[in-house]
Amino acid sequence: MSAQTQAEAPWQPIARRKQADRAAQIPSEWMLPSHVLPRDPPRLEYGPQNVLDVPSQFLSDAEISITESYTIATLLSAIASKKLSSTEVAKAFCHRAAIAQQLTNCLTEPLFASAIERAKELDVYLKEHGKPFGALHGLPVSVKDTFNIAGVDSSIGLAYLCYKPAKKNAVLVTLLLSLGCVIVAKTNVPQTLAALDSINNVFGRTMNPINRLCTAGGSSGGEGVLVAMKGSMIGIGTDIGGSIRVPAMCNGVYGFKPSNGRLPYGGQALTGMEGIGRTSVQAVAGPIARSVEDIDVLMRELVPRASLWGEDCMPVGWSLHPRNPRARGSGKTGELVVGVLRSDGNCAILPPIANVLDEVGAQLRATPNVTVIELDCPRAWTRCQTVMSKLMSVDGAELMADMISATQEPLVPWMATRFRKGKPQPLTRVAELQAQRAALEREMLDIWVSTDSEGRRTQILDAIVCPVAPHPVPPIDGYNAVGMTSSWVLLDYPAGTVPVRVCQESDLQLGTSQGGKVLGSWDERNRELWDESKTDRRIYVGTPLSVQVVVPRLQDEKLVEVMGWVDGAVKGEKQQPVKSRL
Amino acid sequence: MSAQTQAEAPWQPIARRKQADRAAQIPSEWMLPSHVLPRDPPRLEYGPQNVLDVPSQFLSDAEISITESYTIATLLSAIASKKLSSTEVAKAFCHRAAIAQQLTNCLTEPLFASAIERAKELDVYLKEHGKPFGALHGLPVSVKDTFNIAGVDSSIGLAYLCYKPAKKNAVLVTLLLSLGCVIVAKTNVPQTLAALDSINNVFGRTMNPINRLCTAGGSSGGEGVLVAMKGSMIGIGTDIGGSIRVPAMCNGVYGFKPSNGRLPYGGQALTGMEGIGRTSVQAVAGPIARSVEDIDVLMRELVPRASLWGEDCMPVGWSLHPRNPRARGSGKTGELVVGVLRSDGNCAILPPIANVLDEVGAQLRATPNVTVIELDCPRAWTRCQTVMSKLMSVDGAELMADMISATQEPLVPWMATRFRKGKPQPLTRVAELQAQRAALEREMLDIWVSTDSEGRRTQILDAIVCPVAPHPVPPIDGYNAVGMTSSWVLLDYPAGTVPVRVCQESDLQLGTSQGGKVLGSWDERNRELWDESKTDRRIYVGTPLSVQVVVPRLQDEKLVEVMGWVDGAVKGEKQQPVKSRL
Repeated sequence: MSAQTQAEAPWQPIARRKQADRAAQIPSEWMLPSHVLPRDPPRLEYGPQNVLDVPSQFLSDAEISITESYTIATLLSAIASKKLSSTEVAKAFCHRAAIAQQLTNCLTEPLFASAIERAKELDVYLKEHGKPFGALHGLPVSVKDTFNIAGVDSSIGLAYLCYKPAKKNAVLVTLLLSLGCVIVAKTNVPQTLAALDSINNVFGRTMNPINRLCTAGGSSGGEGVLVAMKGSMIGIGTDIGGSIRVPAMCNGVYGFKPSNGRLPYGGQALTGMEGIGRTSVQAVAGPIARSVEDIDVLMRELVPRASLWGEDCMPVGWSLHPRNPRARGSGKTGELVVGVLRSDGNCAILPPIANVLDEVGAQLRATPNVTVIELDCPRAWTRCQTVMSKLMSVDGAELMADMISATQEPLVPWMATRFRKGKPQPLTRVAELQAQRAALEREMLDIWVSTDSEGRRTQILDAIVCPVAPHPVPPIDGYNAVGMTSSWVLLDYPAGTVPVRVCQESDLQLGTSQGGKVLGSWDERNRELWDESKTDRRIYVGTPLSVQVVVPRLQDEKLVEVMGWVDGAVKGEKQQPVKSRL
Repeated sequence: MSAQTQAEAPWQPIARRKQADRAAQIPSEWMLPSHVLPRDPPRLEYGPQNVLDVPSQFLSDAEISITESYTIATLLSAIASKKLSSTEVAKAFCHRAAIAQQLTNCLTEPLFASAIERAKELDVYLKEHGKPFGALHGLPVSVKDTFNIAGVDSSIGLAYLCYKPAKKNAVLVTLLLSLGCVIVAKTNVPQTLAALDSINNVFGRTMNPINRLCTAGGSSGGEGVLVAMKGSMIGIGTDIGGSIRVPAMCNGVYGFKPSNGRLPYGGQALTGMEGIGRTSVQAVAGPIARSVEDIDVLMRELVPRASLWGEDCMPVGWSLHPRNPRARGSGKTGELVVGVLRSDGNCAILPPIANVLDEVGAQLRATPNVTVIELDCPRAWTRCQTVMSKLMSVDGAELMADMISATQEPLVPWMATRFRKGKPQPLTRVAELQAQRAALEREMLDIWVSTDSEGRRTQILDAIVCPVAPHPVPPIDGYNAVGMTSSWVLLDYPAGTVPVRVCQESDLQLGTSQGGKVLGSWDERNRELWDESKTDRRIYVGTPLSVQVVVPRLQDEKLVEVMGWVDGAVKGEKQQPVKSRL
């Protein structure tokens, strides 16, 4: 059929116009020469086409220094002391984000002009008032496309939602702005937001900057990539199945999924029935960052103010636990007790994941004041995946299906076999799932708590280290089970991703096959990612291997602490590395 | 029809047997002579038949001293120092509870024998170990009938549930026992638990000990009465529409409804669809007590341990707010800012309630370090009642209706026109109500928080003082709207009842009628309680008048503080009266 006779579907011109508008936000002097752009489509023979170091070829020394050599704390301090202006910081980050966009397609809405404008205002404020506008004065941040910003689309990659700019800011956006942040861009997401590859018909696919053959992750995929590319200092994603932790893993950065109620979630693009999160399970907002310290600095400014802004937030501050380093753990002599949890019983972990857990366990054991124990997989953890999966889909995805079909969009590859419009479940079914969830929560209490012979209870475990996924960063559209991330949302446990090291040739065990008994259909699929007749394991070389750290509900500060311990142990530090906390 | 031809309904022999079993728990030496028992049915010409002082006629001096002259803190200290034994304390309270039962019908399950047995074990423990078993060693407590105790019925007054003893303890019961509490009894509730008069077919009606013509309140009605009669040191009730605060008001004691997540709720009699609380709105457990100080002492032992026991609890301790008395408020100089909120816009308050609010406002104004402001009724507060009422009934009450009809029980008078079996609502409807709820929560934020010209927010109001109900303690079966209590549960604000004074002849304004415009059908009914052609206002004389204190979500410690300030102001104290906190 010729182009003439093939009528265009309604979404296509919208997507073309949207992409052109996006491209127009990048000043011509920031356009990259075509020879540095990666070759498409990605092929095994082109190799990983790692683009992490490309931006520095096109940035000035000052821009490189601004975007690479600061933590949030030191950057804020440099701006407050007028060593750097907010404007030059914003320009450097916008420039770098523009380069990242050209290399990875990670942005939906570049906000470079408004970011630089805002930075100028902040500079004037600092000059006139002699003090910063707020605690995060001049901090360049990016947000997932779901967050409303007044006057900007929250299309989440759906043609139907394009050119319907938001009327007001999401609550968290307002809070960030009230503290002096500068929002440099909104970032790409998967169609439906329920996939682990950030591809949609409007903006296309976001590519992994480390290895173009592997997924960039999702649903906060653009955010993970932009932070890895250092196009913003820190990004805000959202997570219900793993949407912060998975892209952090895929791009080798840090992801932090808080408990529900620590950061405002309101004012995001509506992707399903309004109010459904309160009846079923609630997604949460959280940072994707370059370091644990950066997460801590952001959270300690946002969390204590959150309940003034979000009706969904708690007035609990950011200091639940005493900061006495000698008495922070649940061990008998006050040491930190970390349990290693290897498999969720649904998928056996592939060898690189097993290696990394072994190494992290050994490194933690060698850390003073830390005890490491091996945990058996609780039956409840195995069952969480199913209950969570059912709870996440109780609304039947009617609104999403209608928005997709409104402009005759096709489903993206990963969704094609997985998405269909259903009916909302009866309330009785939802209540039944909630009762099952409560029972799982009760069962899981047993791993944290011990009861003595006289019936008194104490917490005996501080944190869990477990995989983010049973597999390394998978090939594009190859992500399998999310049980290892989604379960912690069902339980509302804070959970974060810590990158450990890159996958090496020696992790591949070429020529050997995965042993053990197949645990079920999820495991069967997972094994395909290791089956040399189906997957060339060499694609994993150079991709990041990470672990997940998990703590009990609402002990978010503890999570930052333990992520710091893990990070420090992995880096061979003997001291607790979240310096701002000590 | 003669008794011979009228066949008995199945519930009747069950109720008879249950009442006989209950009576058998009272030792014969504790039985009261019939001449001191109030006359039934209550009639205006018999007067209020106040029985509060009857127990002291039948108790020894030691028993009177034990049950009347201690706070929780001083009682625990007397037991720990062996000035009193747990056994003599338990016996004194059981004796007094037995007398209360005969005068008011407030108990469902007297647990006198097991309480005294447990107290003996505690005495042995203290002797052998030289230290108390737990922080609440020997404290006599009572619990609402809904709380499961292994081996004891949780019939909640339904014949269908009689003689089906619970297999294990409710979580809060286990926690109380782990701290050394002694449970003296379970207490009476209304049929369906959804009424404000504690009457059911199995146990009959609990009577108000102050005025037999007026309601004892519900649904934790037996608890309110037993605490007022000093038959236990403190009681545990539950509250969703007002079920702790209303009986506290009716019986002149203190009621404390915490935020959701401060005390474990699990392990209670199932009265509806399991898991429904998580999809709609969650009831909470909390104390009914003799003083604010007693509430504080109990909460500071329970709350920090709650998350070790209840999957529904938060690890947030009992010290959210700094205890520096000079800087505890939101005022410009650190003073406490209290807003007086008079009507919810659904019912105009009757004159005694207006009088008491005026007085409390004036007394607080005269308190150093306190600022009082008058609040306009937020539109959101008016709308809360309807959304809450709909959310509370989304499950269609199918299980409750089936349990009632299983033994052919009739509905009790108040329920007869209000209860009917329905169908569970569609999930879409529940989500819609949750979205409305979130919007109301957002709107209500505006009364607590102020935004400055640069977009920064601060809390400007610490607490609200408002009515518990728009009317005084109403005649039996006369309770009207619960909007003024249920709304705070919709918003998950902690809220408590503080008794102020008794209603006096001068409050009655005999011969005058209620002015103002009728606000709607709730208001119309409310006016009937003041309409001298329908209600003899003289029944109100001598009944307690109370106010409700409310703070933002999860600021439960602040609620205890402000209840203390209100209580102190009312008593003419110039110092903050929660002594244990300073």
